[in-house]
Parts: sequence; structure tokens; C-alpha cells
Amino acid sequence: MRDGREEEIRNIVGELLEDYKDDRTINQIELFDQPDTEVIVDILDKMLKIVFPGFFREKTYRFYNLNSRLTVLLEDVMFNLNKQIAIALRQLPENQNANEDEMAEKAEKITLEFFKKIPLIREYTETDVQAAFDGDPAAFNRNEIILSYPGLYTITINRIAHELFKLSVPLIPRIMTEHAHSQTGIDIHPGATIGKYFFMDHGTGIVVGETTIIGDNVKVYQGVTIGALSTRGGQKLKGVKRHPTIEDNVTIYSGASVLGGETVIGRNSVIGSNAFITSSIAPETRVSIKNQELNYKTGKNKKEASGIEITDLEQDESWFYII
Amino acid sequence: MRDGREEEIRNIVGELLEDYKDDRTINQIELFDQPDTEVIVDILDKMLKIVFPGFFREKTYRFYNLNSRLTVLLEDVMFNLNKQIAIALRQLPENQNANEDEMAEKAEKITLEFFKKIPLIREYTETDVQAAFDGDPAAFNRNEIILSYPGLYTITINRIAHELFKLSVPLIPRIMTEHAHSQTGIDIHPGATIGKYFFMDHGTGIVVGETTIIGDNVKVYQGVTIGALSTRGGQKLKGVKRHPTIEDNVTIYSGASVLGGETVIGRNSVIGSNAFITSSIAPETRVSIKNQELNYKTGKNKKEASGIEITDLEQDESWFYII
Amino acid sequence: MRDGREEEIRNIVGELLEDYKDDRTINQIELFDQPDTEVIVDILDKMLKIVFPGFFREKTYRFYNLNSRLTVLLEDVMFNLNKQIAIALRQLPENQNANEDEMAEKAEKITLEFFKKIPLIREYTETDVQAAFDGDPAAFNRNEIILSYPGLYTITINRIAHELFKLSVPLIPRIMTEHAHSQTGIDIHPGATIGKYFFMDHGTGIVVGETTIIGDNVKVYQGVTIGALSTRGGQKLKGVKRHPTIEDNVTIYSGASVLGGETVIGRNSVIGSNAFITSSIAPETRVSIKNQELNYKTGKNKKEASGIEITDLEQDESWFYII
Repeated sequence: MRDGREEEIRNIVGELLEDYKDDRTINQIELFDQPDTEVIVDILDKMLKIVFPGFFREKTYRFYNLNSRLTVLLEDVMFNLNKQIAIALRQLPENQNANEDEMAEKAEKITLEFFKKIPLIREYTETDVQAAFDGDPAAFNRNEIILSYPGLYTITINRIAHELFKLSVPLIPRIMTEHAHSQTGIDIHPGATIGKYFFMDHGTGIVVGETTIIGDNVKVYQGVTIGALSTRGGQKLKGVKRHPTIEDNVTIYSGASVLGGETVIGRNSVIGSNAFITSSIAPETRVSIKNQELNYKTGKNKKEASGIEITDLEQDESWFYII
Repeated sequence: MRDGREEEIRNIVGELLEDYKDDRTINQIELFDQPDTEVIVDILDKMLKIVFPGFFREKTYRFYNLNSRLTVLLEDVMFNLNKQIAIALRQLPENQNANEDEMAEKAEKITLEFFKKIPLIREYTETDVQAAFDGDPAAFNRNEIILSYPGLYTITINRIAHELFKLSVPLIPRIMTEHAHSQTGIDIHPGATIGKYFFMDHGTGIVVGETTIIGDNVKVYQGVTIGALSTRGGQKLKGVKRHPTIEDNVTIYSGASVLGGETVIGRNSVIGSNAFITSSIAPETRVSIKNQELNYKTGKNKKEASGIEITDLEQDESWFYII
Repeated sequence: MRDGREEEIRNIVGELLEDYKDDRTINQIELFDQPDTEVIVDILDKMLKIVFPGFFREKTYRFYNLNSRLTVLLEDVMFNLNKQIAIALRQLPENQNANEDEMAEKAEKITLEFFKKIPLIREYTETDVQAAFDGDPAAFNRNEIILSYPGLYTITINRIAHELFKLSVPLIPRIMTEHAHSQTGIDIHPGATIGKYFFMDHGTGIVVGETTIIGDNVKVYQGVTIGALSTRGGQKLKGVKRHPTIEDNVTIYSGASVLGGETVIGRNSVIGSNAFITSSIAPETRVSIKNQELNYKTGKNKKEASGIEITDLEQDESWFYII
């Protein structure tokens, strides 16, 4: 900006500072009262190294002894997670007036409880790796799955976030699962309960709602929604079971929707692609949509080598194309 | 690489340098003539701190006084945005021969115009936070929405990019919205006009086209396309209204497509999941697809506890599963 | 953490170290035996600069002479890719007992072979830019496409990864394409063979399987699956052609699925939105789904200006909404 503009800039800044004075939700200038997303993402990265030691190399700590390396890593995560939990707990209405010591005490208890769950998380994750290998002919080996599969990445973060959710930590679990969502396009609420041997292939577009319960050996493909039937009640529905129960050994193929808090998909069932299910399905059932009726036409649909289409197609109402 | 390979490497480098000499689109070695994506993403991160002061902590500038902190932040963004705009303006055919002073003058005017819009952007964004809270029973509180909801993140970036789009800045608005797209799977063109209280839940797979007009209080769920009906004209359609108008208080549920530049969804209407709409809908209408016809079969579809399926299912043409 | 907790922390760490002693897939403490995802992503970023010189500015190397700049960049990528390939090759069962020299020799050969393919990759990518410009009326110019289009980003990374895949490099190609998948929501297996002038618009949710073959001038929109029909055989299907062949000049509109290893979409055909195709389509054919049957109701579906819906809608079984 050149010099002549200085006053104009000062005016704009002044107006904005004025604008911040309104008491609005998007203000909130108590700077150090919010959990820090960057710190939480860093905690997650380190938690993945704890769950999969060796796969995710720790460059910061150059110990050749695994014990020392892990001890340092664990203490780092513990320290930072504890701090973030203490900040997040303030978001609970009952903690607004608690004193510092009480809050620190609560945060520590939760942090330690959470760390005791890591062997359990690892036990479940081991089964998820196996399920991906058994389920995907394109899997080269287990290492490829751990190093690159977005489904495994997401379910692992979900298992971590779910333990914090069960310990009633506000905000942090959702920040964790939304981080996974942004990396993979898979949106599983940290409240969802998910059994062993869970496999999501491709994954993009999968949505699993807060009160979903999923058994063991369940496979879910891209674009599947396990969601709520809207009763359009918004905040009035908080805490109500709004999402389905999926029993053991169920497979849900791509694009299917399974909806509603009273919907139960019975064990050993298979839901076909694009099916839209809003009531319970008995065990051992395979559900698919009836064959689509298709129109076929022989067209004069040509393109030049340059990629430019010749638009000699007659316009025809029954032909719907999306750009 | 070992020493013996040196000549081979020199040859490969030589061939590549030769290959760069062709006059092709993907070359373009005028190094400093392109907007810089990294700088634009940094500007966006800082703009989010300006829109939500306090939520996004500014670590670089350690001022305890909000005024100084914001002034420094605003001047930083202004300086860098101004520079990027000056570079981007060169992409307009009419500016190819403009002199440096003219361009600097134009860029400054646009930058200052844009900054005057920030209070307006903040006013809209405040309503988006409210809409997310009212619309989602899983929302713990407004802080959770601001800190973690991908829909809010995307609409905020879109509101910023849309103001630059209206000021006819090339490239930068699209770089901004594609950054949001990569973070959230929500693809809203910066040209789309969107009213207050806009809420997108889950979001992954939402597409909103360039010439879309959306009213107030509109809710859109995952996988919704608000798109064009292809008349397959490519660049010949530039500037034509190709995308729908969505009036106030409309809800569009997951997977629905609303298509075509003459399609108007009248106020207070609801479009059900997976509906495919290519013509206008009267106000106060609820549209849903007729119940799918489903096939049900009792199968012998079992899995062992290990997750390996026993493949004793008869092959059956009517069963379509996607891997 | 306060002092009193120290013993508790020591216990937790002790239990975790105990837990790592099990011989499980998710352990694998041979720290330096895995390819490094971070290094591979860095290689990809630099490869994009090699494919599009000038567009992706190289800040690290400040040379004003293009030759020196590119030489340094190429040698950097060569050195690091070579190292990662040497590590990855160990994952092939036949290389488990190879000596260091043999492995280094193999890795070097592959690296040099790969670099010889860069002009070919650039030739294909040039056509992809052209196809995006011709196909999208919202494209401002070719620079916008190169700087911001997720479809172009993904196909470019795929063309790079596919060359490494053809050279039988394990793990690295998939790490590359999964990185693109995480950035764009487009999941193309590095094994897929894709012709010139390939254009993906919007892109989120596109899945293209390992054994797919795609001709020249093909356009694919958001949410399209080019996938397998499950015969549920898991690892037993490795290497079998499980995914379709798409011939030249085919367009596949949003949400369509084309499935099965014997399915061939003949040249110049068009597949309409949401079509579900599991058998071959003759050349010159346009396929679309029959018009959906829709229910229309005039509702009393109102919202207050605040965004809160008045829930006076009668509950109605035939109305399915997903939250």
C-alpha cells in the first residue's frame, strides 16, 4: 500500500475494532479459553505413533532405545492432552465457576483414565488392519494398509476420540474426528460405538451419526450414510437415540442409507448399493434395490480428438446431465 | 545414486530441459507472474482470525492489547492480499499491457473495497453459526461449531472469496474455495450467491455451481448437487445462468440433485433425499422420491469371527455389490 | 501433571511397553524399514514442480537460471525417491534376503527408468489441462485450472504413481494416490490405466479401481464409481481384472456406478447421472435412468427468520429425511 492510503487503512481498522465490540458469538476474545486445534492435531499425530509404534517414525526424539523413546513420547502427549482437557472442561456449564485446582484434578483423572485405554484401542485397531486385508483384494500387504488406507486412519482416530467422548470431554473428541474427516472425507461422530474388525473401503462420503451402534465384522463402503430420520427437532433431540444399530457381520455397499434410531440391521445381513433403509431388517437378509429401469439410445455423440464435443445431440428432456 | 550413474542422470536432465522448450501450457516459466497458492492459504488462515477474533489464536504477534494485535494482523493481510491481487489482475486480457502504476492503483482500490466488506461477512457468518446450532442436535455448543464444523469453515471461506469474486479478481477466489474444498469435500464456486443462516451438515460431496442463487435459512446435507443441466457447450456457456435458484427456508436432504439455470425451488419447500430435480418446484412443496422397491432374501451369508466371509452365496444377477 | 501422579504415569508407560511386546501387525518396531510418508509427499510436491515448471515456484533453491534450478530439483527428487524405492522394494517377498548392493542396484534402475517417463507424463498432463478448459464453462483460463482444479491435481499425481506402479514398486504408488485422495476426495488406484484428455469435474467421491482401463477423451463427474462387482473373494481375487473398461470419448455423469471386470462401455457413449451399470454398453449409446417417480405435497413447512423451524409438519412415513 502506498503512503496516501494510510488514513483510509486506519479508518477500516477502526471500523473493524468497533465491529468487534458487539457481543456476538463469533467474537469471544478470551484468547486462552479455547482448546487449540493445532495442539490437538499434534496430539493425534503422536497418538498414532503410540498406537502403531515403528510405523510412524518419531524424528524429534532420537533415542535408539524404544523404551526411552516411547516414554518421552507418552509424557509429551499426556502433558499436552491434560492441558487441553483442562481448557475444554470449562465448556461444561457445571464447571464455569470451578476453581483452578478442582479443574486440574478433574483433567488429570481423565487423562490417566484415557491412557489406560490405549492397550484396548490397540487391540481393536489390530482387528481393523486384519479386516482391511481380508476385505480388499487390492491390498498389497498389511504395511500398505497401515501406511496409506484412509479407512484405517479414520477408524483409529475415532477409537481414540470415542474414549475421550465416553469420559465426557467436550469439544476435543469432535475436533479430532473432524480432523480425520478433513483428511479422508469420512465423517464418524465420536459418540458412535463401533465393534472389532471394522472395514471401510474408499471411504469418501461415509457419514456415521452420534448415537449409532455397530457390532463386530461390519464392512461399509464409500458414500454410505448411517444417519437420523429428521424429526426436525434440532437441539430438542439432543441425547435421543437418533441413529441405527448395525449388528455383527453386516455389509453395507456404496451409496446406501440406513436411517433412524429404531432401525436395526440384523446380524449377517447385506445391504445393497444405493438402498434407502428406514426400518429394521431381519437377520440373515440380503436387501437390494430392484433393477433400475434404464433408457438406451443410439446417439450421434461424437467428440473431436481435441476433447471438444460436437453438440449435435438433439435436446431431450429425458436426458439429465449434471455439470 | 552411485558415481557411475552420473552421465545417465545428466542425460535425463538434458532431455527434460529440452522438453521444457516446447511452448506448452504446462510450462510457463515466467516465475513471478502467478498468484502464490501458499500465500493465499496463509491469507485465508489470517482472515479466519479476523472474522472470529479470539477463536483462532494468533501466535506470531504476541500483543496483549487486542487493538494492536488486530491492527498488525489486518495490515499483514492487506499487504499480502494487495500483492496477490496485483499479480492476479494481470490475468485479465485488458490488463496485459497496463503499466505498473495503473495495476498497483487498481489492486489497492480492490483491496480497500474488500476490507470494507469484512463487517458484512462477519454479520452473515454470525447467522451461519446460529443456523448450525439450531439445526444439529449433535452440536455441543457454538464453540464446537466454530472450532470444528466443516460446513461453517467452508461457508466462511466462500463468503470471503465471493466478495473478491464480485470485485472481479481473477483466480484468487477460486484458489480460496478449492482450498476449502480440499479441506472439507464441499465444492462451492465463489460465484454462488448465498443468503443468511446457511447450514450444511456433514457436507462431504456438496457441489454448488457458479451461477447458483440461494436465499436465507437454507439447509443442505451431504452429497447434494446444485448444478447445471449439461447442454454440453463448454466454454460457450461462460456467463450464462446455468445453476438453480433456491428461495428462502428451503431444505435439501442428502444426495439430492437440483439442476438447471431455470429451476427455482420455491420458498419453504423441502427436497427429500436422493431426489433428482430438473424443473421448478412451487413454494411450500415437499418433494420426495417414491418408496424404492427393494428385494429381500434370506441368505446364508456368514462370516467367521476373523472377518473372512464364507463365500457360499449363490451368484445372483440381481445382486449388485460394489467394492 | 502434578508430582503425586508420577508413579501412576510410570505404571501406565510400563503397561504400554509390555503391550508392545506382543508380536502384532501394528507393532513393527524395525524403525527404518518403512517408506516415509512425509518424504514421499515432499517428493510429490517437487514432482509437480517438475511437471509444471514455473507454476509451482521453488523457494528453496533461489537460482535465476532455470537450468540450474531444475537440475538441483531433479537431483534432489532422484536422490530421495531412490532411497524410498530401495526401502519399499524390501516389501517384496523375493527381496527379503537380497543384499544391500543388489537392492541399491535395483532401486537405481527403477529410479532412472521412472525419470525417463517424465516427458511422457508431461505430454499426457498437457492434454488433461486442455480437456478441463474445453469441458468446464466455469474455467476462467488454463492457469486457474493448473493452480486450483482438484481433478487435474489428482490425475497428475496418478500419472506419476502409475509409472512407479508399472515398474513394480510396492507401497509408494498407493501412498501417493492416497495423498491425492486425502486432498481431493478422488480415489484412483495407481494401477488404473488412463488415456489422454481425461477430465474430472468437482471430483469429490470419484472411485476408480485398480484394474480399470480408460481410453482417451473420457469425462467423469463427482460421485462416480468405476468399481468391482463383489464376488466377495477378498485376497483370492488379487490380480484378476475386476474393474471395467471405458472406451474413448465416454462421459459418465455424477453419481453413476459402472461395475465389473467384464463390463465395457463402448466408445462415444454417455452414462447418465445415478445410473447403475453392471454389464457392457454398446458404442454410441446414451444410457439414463427412467424418470424418478416423485411425491409432491403442499406443506406447512415454515421457519422463523431466526432459522428455527416450526415443527408443525405432520409426521408422515413416506417422508424420509437424513440428518
